Amino acid sequence: MGMIGGGKDAFIGAVHRLAFNMDGQVELVAGALSVNPDIAVESGNILYLEQDRIYTDYKVMLEKEAAMPADKRLDFVSIVTPNFVHFDPAMMALDKGFNVVIEKPITFSLEQAVQLKEKLAATGLSLLLCHTYTGYPMVKQAKQFLKSGALGKIRKVFVEYPQGWLSTFLEKTGQAQASWRTDPKKSGAAGSMGDIGTHAFNLAEYVTGLQVTEMCAQLNIVVEGRMLDDDGAAFLKFNNGATGVLMATQVAAGEENNVKIRVYGEKGGIEWKQEDANTLLVKWLDKPAEIYRAGTGYLSSFASHNCRTPAGHPEGYLEAFANLYRNFALTLKAKLNNETPKEEWLDFPSVEEGIRGMAFIENVVKSGQSNEKWMKFEV
Amino acid sequence: MGMIGGGKDAFIGAVHRLAFNMDGQVELVAGALSVNPDIAVESGNILYLEQDRIYTDYKVMLEKEAAMPADKRLDFVSIVTPNFVHFDPAMMALDKGFNVVIEKPITFSLEQAVQLKEKLAATGLSLLLCHTYTGYPMVKQAKQFLKSGALGKIRKVFVEYPQGWLSTFLEKTGQAQASWRTDPKKSGAAGSMGDIGTHAFNLAEYVTGLQVTEMCAQLNIVVEGRMLDDDGAAFLKFNNGATGVLMATQVAAGEENNVKIRVYGEKGGIEWKQEDANTLLVKWLDKPAEIYRAGTGYLSSFASHNCRTPAGHPEGYLEAFANLYRNFALTLKAKLNNETPKEEWLDFPSVEEGIRGMAFIENVVKSGQSNEKWMKFEV
Amino acid sequence: MGMIGGGKDAFIGAVHRLAFNMDGQVELVAGALSVNPDIAVESGNILYLEQDRIYTDYKVMLEKEAAMPADKRLDFVSIVTPNFVHFDPAMMALDKGFNVVIEKPITFSLEQAVQLKEKLAATGLSLLLCHTYTGYPMVKQAKQFLKSGALGKIRKVFVEYPQGWLSTFLEKTGQAQASWRTDPKKSGAAGSMGDIGTHAFNLAEYVTGLQVTEMCAQLNIVVEGRMLDDDGAAFLKFNNGATGVLMATQVAAGEENNVKIRVYGEKGGIEWKQEDANTLLVKWLDKPAEIYRAGTGYLSSFASHNCRTPAGHPEGYLEAFANLYRNFALTLKAKLNNETPKEEWLDFPSVEEGIRGMAFIENVVKSGQSNEKWMKFEV
Amino acid sequence: MGMIGGGKDAFIGAVHRLAFNMDGQVELVAGALSVNPDIAVESGNILYLEQDRIYTDYKVMLEKEAAMPADKRLDFVSIVTPNFVHFDPAMMALDKGFNVVIEKPITFSLEQAVQLKEKLAATGLSLLLCHTYTGYPMVKQAKQFLKSGALGKIRKVFVEYPQGWLSTFLEKTGQAQASWRTDPKKSGAAGSMGDIGTHAFNLAEYVTGLQVTEMCAQLNIVVEGRMLDDDGAAFLKFNNGATGVLMATQVAAGEENNVKIRVYGEKGGIEWKQEDANTLLVKWLDKPAEIYRAGTGYLSSFASHNCRTPAGHPEGYLEAFANLYRNFALTLKAKLNNETPKEEWLDFPSVEEGIRGMAFIENVVKSGQSNEKWMKFEV
Repeated sequence: MGMIGGGKDAFIGAVHRLAFNMDGQVELVAGALSVNPDIAVESGNILYLEQDRIYTDYKVMLEKEAAMPADKRLDFVSIVTPNFVHFDPAMMALDKGFNVVIEKPITFSLEQAVQLKEKLAATGLSLLLCHTYTGYPMVKQAKQFLKSGALGKIRKVFVEYPQGWLSTFLEKTGQAQASWRTDPKKSGAAGSMGDIGTHAFNLAEYVTGLQVTEMCAQLNIVVEGRMLDDDGAAFLKFNNGATGVLMATQVAAGEENNVKIRVYGEKGGIEWKQEDANTLLVKWLDKPAEIYRAGTGYLSSFASHNCRTPAGHPEGYLEAFANLYRNFALTLKAKLNNETPKEEWLDFPSVEEGIRGMAFIENVVKSGQSNEKWMKFEV
Repeated sequence: MGMIGGGKDAFIGAVHRLAFNMDGQVELVAGALSVNPDIAVESGNILYLEQDRIYTDYKVMLEKEAAMPADKRLDFVSIVTPNFVHFDPAMMALDKGFNVVIEKPITFSLEQAVQLKEKLAATGLSLLLCHTYTGYPMVKQAKQFLKSGALGKIRKVFVEYPQGWLSTFLEKTGQAQASWRTDPKKSGAAGSMGDIGTHAFNLAEYVTGLQVTEMCAQLNIVVEGRMLDDDGAAFLKFNNGATGVLMATQVAAGEENNVKIRVYGEKGGIEWKQEDANTLLVKWLDKPAEIYRAGTGYLSSFASHNCRTPAGHPEGYLEAFANLYRNFALTLKAKLNNETPKEEWLDFPSVEEGIRGMAFIENVVKSGQSNEKWMKFEV
Repeated sequence: MGMIGGGKDAFIGAVHRLAFNMDGQVELVAGALSVNPDIAVESGNILYLEQDRIYTDYKVMLEKEAAMPADKRLDFVSIVTPNFVHFDPAMMALDKGFNVVIEKPITFSLEQAVQLKEKLAATGLSLLLCHTYTGYPMVKQAKQFLKSGALGKIRKVFVEYPQGWLSTFLEKTGQAQASWRTDPKKSGAAGSMGDIGTHAFNLAEYVTGLQVTEMCAQLNIVVEGRMLDDDGAAFLKFNNGATGVLMATQVAAGEENNVKIRVYGEKGGIEWKQEDANTLLVKWLDKPAEIYRAGTGYLSSFASHNCRTPAGHPEGYLEAFANLYRNFALTLKAKLNNETPKEEWLDFPSVEEGIRGMAFIENVVKSGQSNEKWMKFEV
Repeated sequence: MGMIGGGKDAFIGAVHRLAFNMDGQVELVAGALSVNPDIAVESGNILYLEQDRIYTDYKVMLEKEAAMPADKRLDFVSIVTPNFVHFDPAMMALDKGFNVVIEKPITFSLEQAVQLKEKLAATGLSLLLCHTYTGYPMVKQAKQFLKSGALGKIRKVFVEYPQGWLSTFLEKTGQAQASWRTDPKKSGAAGSMGDIGTHAFNLAEYVTGLQVTEMCAQLNIVVEGRMLDDDGAAFLKFNNGATGVLMATQVAAGEENNVKIRVYGEKGGIEWKQEDANTLLVKWLDKPAEIYRAGTGYLSSFASHNCRTPAGHPEGYLEAFANLYRNFALTLKAKLNNETPKEEWLDFPSVEEGIRGMAFIENVVKSGQSNEKWMKFEV
C-alpha cells in the first residue's frame, strides 16, 4: 500500500503505520509523505521505502504507481493529510483504480462526501473511514448485544468525548496539531465537533443501529481568539423515538481522551468507555450488572474476531485501529479472490458513515448558530 | 423536635430519623406522622413517642406544641410529606415559632417559596432544606477548592443524575413512591426534574458558587401513560459566562442513584460522584491528577467538619444527611445561646436554595415545552 | 445502656455512639467514660447523661446500676476501653446480670476469652463482639453466596488489611491511639496482628464458614523502636483443605483502611473490599462477572435485613457498625419477650469469634517467632 | 530475523509477531516454526516467508542462515518453543553468531541459564528475555520513581499474579497450552511458579531494584491429578531488609491475568496493575494520592520512550511486548553502527534476569517441599 501524508512528525500517520504493521498483512511500499519535499524524502528513507517509490507529490505517485505491473501494484492508498486535503487525493486514487483508506472527517464538505460515494459506486472500489473507536471489540459486542434485543427498545443515549488539550491558546504557539485543527480553512466548518464530535456521533449511531433525525446544539468558543468551536453539546432525536445527549469538548482541562457511551433500553443499559476499553458493562433493571470482557469465550463473533489475545491481556487504541485495517484488508483480499467477505470483516466504517459524519458537522454548526430549538438532521 | 409525615412505611421520613439520630444531638419527641390516624398512632408508638405527643393532625400538633413550656418545647419540626403538603405546615410552623426542616423541592410553586422566604425574614427563624448531596464532605471540599481559584475561571459544568427505577409504569402498580411523584397534583409541575433534577441543579450551583442565567431544556415522558417528565436534559449558561449540561433521568434502566458532577476551569477539573462519595478527583492540565479523600488531614475545614471517622472508613448517604441536621442543630443551638454560628455550620441549604430550586422547576418545564431555544432563568 | 470507656477524645467510643444512636433503638443512660474522673464527668455532661448516672469508676457503675429498678435498668453495657481493660469489666458486668458489648480483641489473653465463654454459659447472657466488617450487607451476601455452594468447594482465600498510619514512630509523639496499641502491656501479645489482623482473620472465617487449622506466619517490626509487630503475613490452611494468605500491615504508607477479601471456589470467586463496600463482585470461570449491589431486590435475607436505604445510597462503616448493635438489640428484645430471634438477627459476632480471634493472636505470634514452618492452630 | 517455534496454532509465537511487526523495525524472513514439518511449512507460507527460508528443523535453519551473505543475514532469532526446547537452540544460535530472543523462563534449569550467560559473554552477543510486564511504560515509571528515592527506603512489597484458566483439569482434555505447561518434562520443576510466578518475581525485583535473599514458600496442587503446582505463595526477604509477599495462582477461578504490584516506602507507596496498565498510582502518607498516566508530559524518559500515543489512547500488552523488541532492536542497531545505545534502550530483561528467574523456580520449589521455614535464595 501507499501513503499520502503522514511524514516523520505527523501524529496520525504514525498511528496508521503502527496499526497496519501489527498483523503483518499490509506492507507500506510507496509514499508521498509530506508536501515539504525534504521531509517527504527523509520520511520515506526512515520508513525503508525504495528510492523510486518515495514521492514528493501525491499526484505523481498515483500516476506512477497506477502504471506499475500487477504484482507490484498498490492494493490501496491511505490518506492521512489534514481535512482539506482528503477529497482530491481520494478522488484521484479511485480514478486510478486504488482502494482508499481515509482519515475522518471524510472530506471538507458534505457535498464532497456525496461525490465520493458516487465515485465509489462507479468504480466498485472500497473505502475505509477511520472511526477507530468502532474497531474496539467491546464496542462491537455492545452493538451486537443491543441488536439482539436483549434490552428491548432503545430509549436513551448518552455519548461524551471530553478532552482537555486545547484548554490554552495552543495554536498561537505554532503547535502543529492545534494549528490546522483550529483553522477553518484546513479543518472545515467545525472545530471540536469535527475533530471528536464526529467520533461521538459515529459511535452513537454505530452502537445503537439508529439514526439521528433532529438536533439542538450549543457550540462554544471557550478560549479567546480561537476561530472554531472548542466545546459543545447537542440534544439528539433518533429515528425510533429515542433521545440522546452528545457532548464533545477539548477544553475540559485535565481530561485525556475518555470517549464514553451509555445506552438504555427498556430492560437495562450498556456502558463502554475507552479508558477501560476491554470491558463492557451491562446493567439490568432487576438483576446484577454484568462485566463483559474482551478475549473471553462468551462474546459474539463480531467481538471475538477483533481480539488478538486471551482475556486479561489488555488491547488498546492501536489494536482497535489495526482492526479497521485488518478487516479492510481481509475484505479486499476476499474481493481479489472472488470470495464473499465474512460479515465480521465487512463491519468497518466507510463512505456512508462519512456522509453521516459530514452531515453531523454541517447540521451541528447550523444548529449551534441558530435560534431555532430543533432542526431536522439533513443529509 | 417533631415530625410531620414520615409514618412507618414512608421512605424519606425513615431516612430523616436515621440521619438526625446519629449524632445524638436531636431527639424526636412529637409527631403527626401520617394523614391516616391509625398509621399516625401506630408509627408514634413504634418510635417510642409519649402518647400525648402522638398527633393525627399536624395543625393540632403545632397548636399544642406551641403551648408547651420552654423546657419541653420543640426546637424545630421536620416536614417530610409529599411536595403538595410542604407549604402549609411550614408556614404554620413558622407562625407558631418553630424552626423548620423541609424536604426538597421546598414547595409546590415558586410563589410559595418566595412567601416562605418572607415569612422567615419576618420571624427570624431558620430553615433547613434537605439537599442531601451538598452534605457530603467531598462536595464541600470541591466547593472550597473551586472557590480558592486553584483551577482559574470556571468554564464548563457537567452534572448528571441517572436513575432507573421508573423504567416501568410503576405508578400503575400502586407503588407509593412512584404514585405521588408522578402525579402533577402531588408532585408539582415537574416529575424527574423536580425529584432529582433539582438536586443536580442545586449541586451545580453549590459547588461552583455560580448561578444559572439561561436554559434550554428537553423534557421527555418515556414511559407511556406517565403524567410527568421522567427524563430530560438542559443546556445551562452561568453568570460568569460558563456553560453546562444537566441531565436527569429516572428511566435509565439499571442505574441506581449515581449523581455526578464535573467542573472544569482553566487549569484543571474536579469530579465527584456519589457512588464513590469519599473521593474527590482533581485533574490537572499538566500534572498528575490527585485523589482527595474524606477523613484525611489535608482537607478544608468545611470538609473536615463534616467527617466523623478517619480516612478509609466510608461514610455515605446517611452521614451526608446527618451533616445537614448537625449543622442546622449547631446553628440553632448557637442562636439559642446568642453565639455566632461558625461559617462551617451555616453551610447548609435553606430558603434561597429552595427558591432557586423552584425557579429551576418552573423554568425547565417552560423551556421544555417551548420552541424557543434559550430562555432567561427567571426567579 | 451504659458505657465503659469512650470518653470525649476516644476514637472507638464515639464510633459506638454514632452506631447505636442511628436506629433509635438504643439509648445511652449511664457511663463510666474515663479512668480520669474529670474527663468522665465532662464526657457524661456532653452526652446529656443524668448527673447520678455519670460514674468515675466502672465498678461503682455496675454496682449501682444493678440495683436500679427494672424499668430503669440497663439492658447491656458496652466496653470500649483498651484491650487490657476488657476482661475485668466484662466479667463483672455479666456477674451483675448485664449483657455485654465488647471491642475486639475480646480479651488480653486466650485464657480470659475461654473464661468469658464459661461465664456466658453460666449466666445465659449475650455478648456482642465488634467485628464491624462482618456487619456490612455485602459481606453477609458473600457468606450466604458461598454457603449456597454456587462456587463449589472453596479452594483459596486471600484476605488483606493494609493501613499506613503507623508508618512513622507515632507512639513517640504521644498520640493516644498509637501509644496504647503499640504497648504490649496494654495491647497484648500482638500489635498490628491484634489490632487489624484479627479483623482479617475473622472476615476470612466468617465469609467462608471454614476454620483455620494451621498457620505459617512472618511478623515484622518495621519502624525502629516499636515494641510490637506493625506488619506481617501468614499462610493459612483451612479445615476443608483450602489454603489462604492473610496480610495485615500498618506501615503501608499511603493506605487508609482498605480491608479486602477474595475467595475462590471451583467455579468462580468473590471479591469484596471496604473501599467499595456496597459492591460484591462475583467472578465466574466461563461467564461474565456479576456486580451485586447493596439495597437491591435480589439479595439474600441476611444482606437485605442489614440495608437501610435503596440501592445507590451508599452505606458505610457506621451503618455496618450499627448493624451489629441493631442485631444484638433485636436479639436481646426477642429474648426479653420470650420470642425466638430470627436467624438474621443472631448473625452477629460473639464469644466464639472472640476465642478464635485470641487464638489467632497467640498462634500468629508463636508462629512468627518460630523457625518451624507450619504450626497447628491451637485453641 | 528468524523464528524457532511459533507455528500457526501456537499462542506466544503469534504474540511475538504482533509485537515485533508493530514498529516496522523488524522483519520475519526465516523460520523453523514447528517440529511438525507439515505445520512448519504451512505456517511459513501463511507468514509469506520465501520458500527457501521455511525450515522444518531449527538446526538446519541456523546452519543455512549462518551461511547467508551479510545483507540477507538474520540479526537475531526468536525462540518461542516450550521451556524444554529453549537451551539447545539458544546455544546453537549464539554459536552461529545470532543474537537471541527467548521466552521466559529462560531455560529448563538454572545451570543451563548460567551456561547461557557464559556463552553470551564469550560471543559478545545480546539476549532479550521476554518478561513482558517490564515493558509497560508505567512499570518503568514505577521503577524510576522508586529509584529517585521519593518514597524513602523501600519496606514492603506485595506482588500477585492471579489467573483462573487452570481451575479445571484442562490438560486432560488435550488443550495444548495446558498440556505442556503442566508436564514436568516440558515445563520444568515448577508449574504456575514457573509460568507466572517468574513474572511476578521479575516484576518485584525490577521495580524495586532490590534482590530477594530468602524465601519461605507454600506450593499447592489444587486440581487433582495435576503433576505440577498450580497455586502458591512465598514470603520474601530483600537485600535491603524489606520483606514481601508473592502470590501466583492459576486456579483463582474467574480471574484473567491481573498481575499487580504494590511497593511501600517510608513516605508512600506505588501501585500498578495490568488491568489498568496505563495508570500508576502514587500514594502518600500525608497528601492526596496521585494518578500518573501513560502518554503525559511529566513522565521519566524511561516511561516516555516506551509510549507511542498521547495520553488517553490506551496501550496494552502487545505494546508492552513491542517495547521489548523495539529496545532490543535499537540496541542491536546501535551496536551494529558502533554507537552507544541509550540507557532507555538497554532497559530490557536479559540473561541476568533469566538466571534470577531460574533461581526463583529452583528455590521456590525447594522451599515449597521443605519443612524449613526460611531458605537462603541460592543462585
